[in-house]
Amino acid sequence: MAKTIIGVMGPGKSAASDVIEQTTKLGQLIAQAGWVLLTGGRNVGVMEAASKGAKQAGGITVGILPTEYESGTSKFVDIPIYTGMGSARNNINILSSDVVVACGSGAGTTSEVMLALKAQKPLILLQPPEKLVTFVDDLPYPKPVTAATAEQVIPHIQNLI
Amino acid sequence: MAKTIIGVMGPGKSAASDVIEQTTKLGQLIAQAGWVLLTGGRNVGVMEAASKGAKQAGGITVGILPTEYESGTSKFVDIPIYTGMGSARNNINILSSDVVVACGSGAGTTSEVMLALKAQKPLILLQPPEKLVTFVDDLPYPKPVTAATAEQVIPHIQNLI
Amino acid sequence: MAKTIIGVMGPGKSAASDVIEQTTKLGQLIAQAGWVLLTGGRNVGVMEAASKGAKQAGGITVGILPTEYESGTSKFVDIPIYTGMGSARNNINILSSDVVVACGSGAGTTSEVMLALKAQKPLILLQPPEKLVTFVDDLPYPKPVTAATAEQVIPHIQNLI
Amino acid sequence: MAKTIIGVMGPGKSAASDVIEQTTKLGQLIAQAGWVLLTGGRNVGVMEAASKGAKQAGGITVGILPTEYESGTSKFVDIPIYTGMGSARNNINILSSDVVVACGSGAGTTSEVMLALKAQKPLILLQPPEKLVTFVDDLPYPKPVTAATAEQVIPHIQNLI
Repeated sequence: MAKTIIGVMGPGKSAASDVIEQTTKLGQLIAQAGWVLLTGGRNVGVMEAASKGAKQAGGITVGILPTEYESGTSKFVDIPIYTGMGSARNNINILSSDVVVACGSGAGTTSEVMLALKAQKPLILLQPPEKLVTFVDDLPYPKPVTAATAEQVIPHIQNLI
Repeated sequence: MAKTIIGVMGPGKSAASDVIEQTTKLGQLIAQAGWVLLTGGRNVGVMEAASKGAKQAGGITVGILPTEYESGTSKFVDIPIYTGMGSARNNINILSSDVVVACGSGAGTTSEVMLALKAQKPLILLQPPEKLVTFVDDLPYPKPVTAATAEQVIPHIQNLI
Repeated sequence: MAKTIIGVMGPGKSAASDVIEQTTKLGQLIAQAGWVLLTGGRNVGVMEAASKGAKQAGGITVGILPTEYESGTSKFVDIPIYTGMGSARNNINILSSDVVVACGSGAGTTSEVMLALKAQKPLILLQPPEKLVTFVDDLPYPKPVTAATAEQVIPHIQNLI
Repeated sequence: MAKTIIGVMGPGKSAASDVIEQTTKLGQLIAQAGWVLLTGGRNVGVMEAASKGAKQAGGITVGILPTEYESGTSKFVDIPIYTGMGSARNNINILSSDVVVACGSGAGTTSEVMLALKAQKPLILLQPPEKLVTFVDDLPYPKPVTAATAEQVIPHIQNLI
């Protein structure tokens, strides 16, 4: 039977240090809850941090890579899925997650927030920029939940799965 | 030699009536300029309006459809490309456009704005919501050009190609 | 209204010279019939030859490229569609063609023959290797039509559209 | 660190009963070797059989689904990846496998054999039709290994990883 998969999306190199800290913690908490972590699989930013946190806590980590083969894959990813599709793989990240947690801000991350709304996926924004929240609130979709810390995310996930 | 392809992105059923009016006009002006129009290919909203405008002016229209076969395709599309990929096709819309014009607002359209920023495509926002503009201005990318009318879009395209 | 799109699939660099000759002719005949030519868009082999033939006869040519941007695109392609998806774009080639003509032989071309069977697309094999024909005949699908020359392909297309 | 992923490809409903028997066994042996099993994820044919075998032996199973959401997913898949891409997902199956085992015959399976050749993936054919083998031997790629039983496949995998 399918395990519960929590998708953690967020920027690569441009991720803020506080976002990195929270997503490392979030990866740990997801693993401790017995859920599978899914990220974009790269060895930078939120993808690396969440995968590292989950592995430190003994979890299973899946990465959906934009590349055709190993190149910049996080060493904390157990199961790398090579799509060879570049940013089009963002949609697979969303479709394959039972709950999506978007962390911080960036163009790729925001594209994933939008795809999550379209796909009607349960969506949590961790430390989102205020301007993103006010923009999203005007879109004709249910308002996503927001959280300031990794610890706050977990009960939201429990409510949504 | 490749023709110049102008991508016009925008919402389907939820498109505002003024956006529909402007994108119909935009389709006409794109065709009159001798450019190929590329849209998401569906028979609703901005996709239908821009394609209709371009055909009324004798242009060539390409549609990148989310479906595997004819289903909800605009009758104003000359060349339907069936991707069978759902929203993942949004990335193809962006990669295949020499200039991207995002019209109005919506989740899918905003995902395309974000993918255009990531792909470093010349980007024009036609009648964007103010909250989208202020959010995008904070992202670490060149600020996209904005326009209030179809007529204003054309000189921007001429500068960008 | 959508134009009739004929997909011509075939190998790149490894294409045999007789296949190149026939597909150049096939591109011309497709253009003369008023159909749009669709290929994989690269500047080698069958893709280049068919596109060149079609442009020499004044036709419209579409190329579905594996890359994210201009790189090895045939100069005889009017409308390059950049998928950034590598070989996964083969499925788009098939889904977007009203009739598929597979020319010669190769791994990529054979993958497209298989995808055409799965998608139940009208399929013509031009100069196929005998071993491919005998293998395909055993699959649980209608037998594809075969042709030895470009001229033989055209009446088959006319029967199938 | 990435686990070793063995992709088992094969037909759905049309799979022969002997192929089903061997791929159930193959799934068991893959799990016993400590490798992750990757399939197309559906609840029919080779995908179901291999996933069932692997779960019976306590392994981890990944399924790369053609659909956007749960629909016909094998209950023996731990980690379903929803691509929403139809047959274009076949390329992801190949790119994500360290070794590809193609079982029996069919159009989709043959497309995956061809994509594996193109991607230069280690390839094993389990109970292939003789006509497929003779066709593949003529293609300009290294000849894939063939096997008659699941037990024969395992030492081949060990040689290839």
